[in-house]
Amino acid sequence: METLSLKKVYEARDILSKVARKTELIHSSFLSRKNNVFLKAENLQLTGSFKLRGAYYKISKLTDEQKKKGIIACSAGNHAQGVALAAKENNIKATIFIPATAPLSKVEATRSYGADIKLIDGVYDDAYREAVKFQKETGGIFIHPFDDIDVIAGQGTIALEIYEQLSDVDAIVVPIGGGGLISGIAATIKQLKPDCKIYGVQAERASSMYASKKEHKKVELRFVNTFADGTAVKVPGDLTFDFCEHSVDEIITVTEDEIACAVLSLIEKEKLISEGSGALSVAAVMFDKIPLENKNVVCVVSGGNIDVNILSRVINRALLKAGRISNLTVELLDKPGQLKEVSSIIAKYGANVIRVRHNQGGEGTDINDCYLKISMETRDFEHFNKIKNALIDAGYNILSTVQ
Amino acid sequence: METLSLKKVYEARDILSKVARKTELIHSSFLSRKNNVFLKAENLQLTGSFKLRGAYYKISKLTDEQKKKGIIACSAGNHAQGVALAAKENNIKATIFIPATAPLSKVEATRSYGADIKLIDGVYDDAYREAVKFQKETGGIFIHPFDDIDVIAGQGTIALEIYEQLSDVDAIVVPIGGGGLISGIAATIKQLKPDCKIYGVQAERASSMYASKKEHKKVELRFVNTFADGTAVKVPGDLTFDFCEHSVDEIITVTEDEIACAVLSLIEKEKLISEGSGALSVAAVMFDKIPLENKNVVCVVSGGNIDVNILSRVINRALLKAGRISNLTVELLDKPGQLKEVSSIIAKYGANVIRVRHNQGGEGTDINDCYLKISMETRDFEHFNKIKNALIDAGYNILSTVQ
Repeated sequence: METLSLKKVYEARDILSKVARKTELIHSSFLSRKNNVFLKAENLQLTGSFKLRGAYYKISKLTDEQKKKGIIACSAGNHAQGVALAAKENNIKATIFIPATAPLSKVEATRSYGADIKLIDGVYDDAYREAVKFQKETGGIFIHPFDDIDVIAGQGTIALEIYEQLSDVDAIVVPIGGGGLISGIAATIKQLKPDCKIYGVQAERASSMYASKKEHKKVELRFVNTFADGTAVKVPGDLTFDFCEHSVDEIITVTEDEIACAVLSLIEKEKLISEGSGALSVAAVMFDKIPLENKNVVCVVSGGNIDVNILSRVINRALLKAGRISNLTVELLDKPGQLKEVSSIIAKYGANVIRVRHNQGGEGTDINDCYLKISMETRDFEHFNKIKNALIDAGYNILSTVQ
Repeated sequence: METLSLKKVYEARDILSKVARKTELIHSSFLSRKNNVFLKAENLQLTGSFKLRGAYYKISKLTDEQKKKGIIACSAGNHAQGVALAAKENNIKATIFIPATAPLSKVEATRSYGADIKLIDGVYDDAYREAVKFQKETGGIFIHPFDDIDVIAGQGTIALEIYEQLSDVDAIVVPIGGGGLISGIAATIKQLKPDCKIYGVQAERASSMYASKKEHKKVELRFVNTFADGTAVKVPGDLTFDFCEHSVDEIITVTEDEIACAVLSLIEKEKLISEGSGALSVAAVMFDKIPLENKNVVCVVSGGNIDVNILSRVINRALLKAGRISNLTVELLDKPGQLKEVSSIIAKYGANVIRVRHNQGGEGTDINDCYLKISMETRDFEHFNKIKNALIDAGYNILSTVQ
C-alpha cells in the first residue's frame, strides 16, 4: 500500500505556513470528566474547515502546465471552499460544481473566494457527472476531496501541530467522511508517537468506513442520510480505506441526537460553532464511547460551516432531547381562573413559559373541550416531571407530553 | 482621580496566570476591509467572558478575615459566573443574587461553579436590594461588577496580552456597560503605547457612558432596553467614568439591528459565539463607525454567554435585515396551476422556499380571495427584488413584503 512519509507532511506544513492558520488547541473543562480533553479547533481554520490544507498542498504540487488548465472540484461544502481559496491564493482558475440544492450560504461563501460556480440541478451525483464532462472538455485537473496522497499529506499537518501543542497526547478522535482527514492524522502521528491511539467517528447513518473496517473491505452504502452532511459519503476511497485499516485503532458511530447535543454543547460551553460533521468527535467523547480514562485526548473539531437555518433546528432538537424545552397539553376544566392556576404552578417550579396555545373546541375534539398547549424552558427531565406531577396533583388531566 | 499603575496590572496578570486563559487574538479576514482587524476572543475565556479576570484578582486581594466571611454578588450574567468560579478557585463561599427573570441557562451555569444561588422575584433592582440586606446581616464582601480598582486592574490584563500579541496595535475597540473593561484596557495600553486609540462602543439603547462623556458628568438613564443585556447599565461608576473621561478617545453607539448582524457575522464568518454585548465592538467596525484607515485594529469580543433561545431570535432578525430571508404575500388568481407557476418563478431565480402558507378566504378577506404567503432564503435585497418583479411581470399581484 501507499505510505505517507513524514518528510512529505513537513513539506506540506512549510507550504501551508503561508496561508493556513495554526489553529488553537483549546482545553475543554466540560468534556474533561474521564479524560483530559482538548479541542483542535479546525472550525477556526480559514474557509471554516480543515479542507484548505489538503487542497492547498495538492494545488502547490501541480506543474505549471497543469495549473494553466485550471482546477475542477465537485462539492456542496467544505471541499468547495477549501479548493476555491487555495486556487485564489495560487492565482489559478477554479471551477466548482455544486448541486442546486445546496444552501445558499455555502454557495455564496464559495463564490466569495472567486471561484467560477456551476450550479447543477439535482443532487451531488448530477453535479459530479457534469464536473467529469467538463474535465474531459477542458483537460482541467480534478481535485479529489479525499482519495489523494497529497490531499492526505495536507490534512496530516494537523497531527504535526497537535504533537507540537501537546507532546504527551494519548489519543486523537477524528471525524470520518471519506477518510482523508483521519488518514493524514493517523499516518503522521503514528510515526511521531506510535502509542498514540486514533479513534475515528462516523454518523450512524453514514458509516461506510465503520462498515468497511469491520468487514476488512470497502463497503458501499446505498444511501446516507445525516445532518452531518460534510461526512455523508457512500463509499471510502481506496487509499483512505487502506490507511484506516492499518493506522486507525477503532471506529465508533454516534446518533443524530448525540451529534445535535454535541453541537449545542460546543456553542454553550465553548462558544464555538461547529457543523454536525465537525462535532462527531465531541459527540463520541460526550457520550462515553472512547474506552480511555485519565488520558490526554484531543478531539478534532473539523469544521464549522453549518447553515444557520439548520443550526436553529439542531439547537431546538438538542434542547428537547436534554429536557430543556418541554411541551405539554393540559385539559382545562369548564370554570374560570384555570389558565392562571396552571401558570402559577409552572412559575412556582421555576420554569419559563415560552409559548402558549389555548384551543377551544375545534377539529377532532368535543365542542366543550378546552386545551392548553404549553412550551416551557425546564432544567431537565426531572424538573419537567415535578411540574407535570404538580399539575396532576392539582387535579389537571395531562393529555400529552412531547420531549 | 485614582490611577491604575502598570505594576498593579502586572501583579494581576501573575495572579491570573494560574486560572485564566490567555485568549487568542484572531485575525478576521471579513472585517479587514478598511483596516487590518483582529478579534481578542474573551468569549473563549473561562466562564465565557472577561469578568473572571477582575473578580479573581479582586478576591485574591481580600484579607483572610474577609475571605472567611464569604463574598456576595448580584448579577444575572457574566459577573455572576466570573465571581462564582473565582470564589471556587479560592475556596471561599460565594452567594450570588439573581433576579428570577434571568434565563435558566445562566442560572445553571453559575450554580455549576458551586455558588450559592438566591433567586429573587422581580428584576435586577429587587435582587440588589436583597443582596445588600444579606451583606449587612453577614458582613460578607460585596464584589462590585465594575467600579472597583482591583476589578479594573484585572480587566487591564487584556491590554497586556494584546500588546504582547500585536505590539503595533493602533486601536482597540471595546464594549462598554459599566465601564470596568474599557477602564482597565485604556489605562493600561496608554502607559505602554500612548498613541494607541481607544474606542468604546455602547448599544444606542443603553448608552449611559456615551451620554456621560458627552456632558462631562455622570448621566443616569431612566431605563435601558437592549438585547445586549450584559451592557445594560443605567449609570457609569465614579471610577469608570473618570477613566473614560481621561483615557478613552471616543465613544460610539450602535443599533440593535447592527448588533444582531455582528453576532450573525461572527457565527458565519469566524465560527465564534458572542453575546450581544460581546459583539458591540464588531458592530462598530462592520458598520464603519471607527474613523481609521489602514490601521491595526483590535476588537475585544468580551463575552459569549448568550441564551440559545435569544440566539435563534437574533439570527432570524439578522437574516431578515440582510435580505437573506424574505417574506411576500401573493394574491392568486382563480384558476388552477397558480401555486406551481409561482413556485417555478421563485426556483428559476435560485431562491429556496422555506415556508409556504396558502390561505383561502378567511377573516378580513373576500370569500373568493386566495393568498400565498411565502418565506424564502434569498441572497440579498437585489435578489429578492428580481423575484418580486418577475412575479409582477407574470401578472401576479404582490400584496405585501416584509423584510
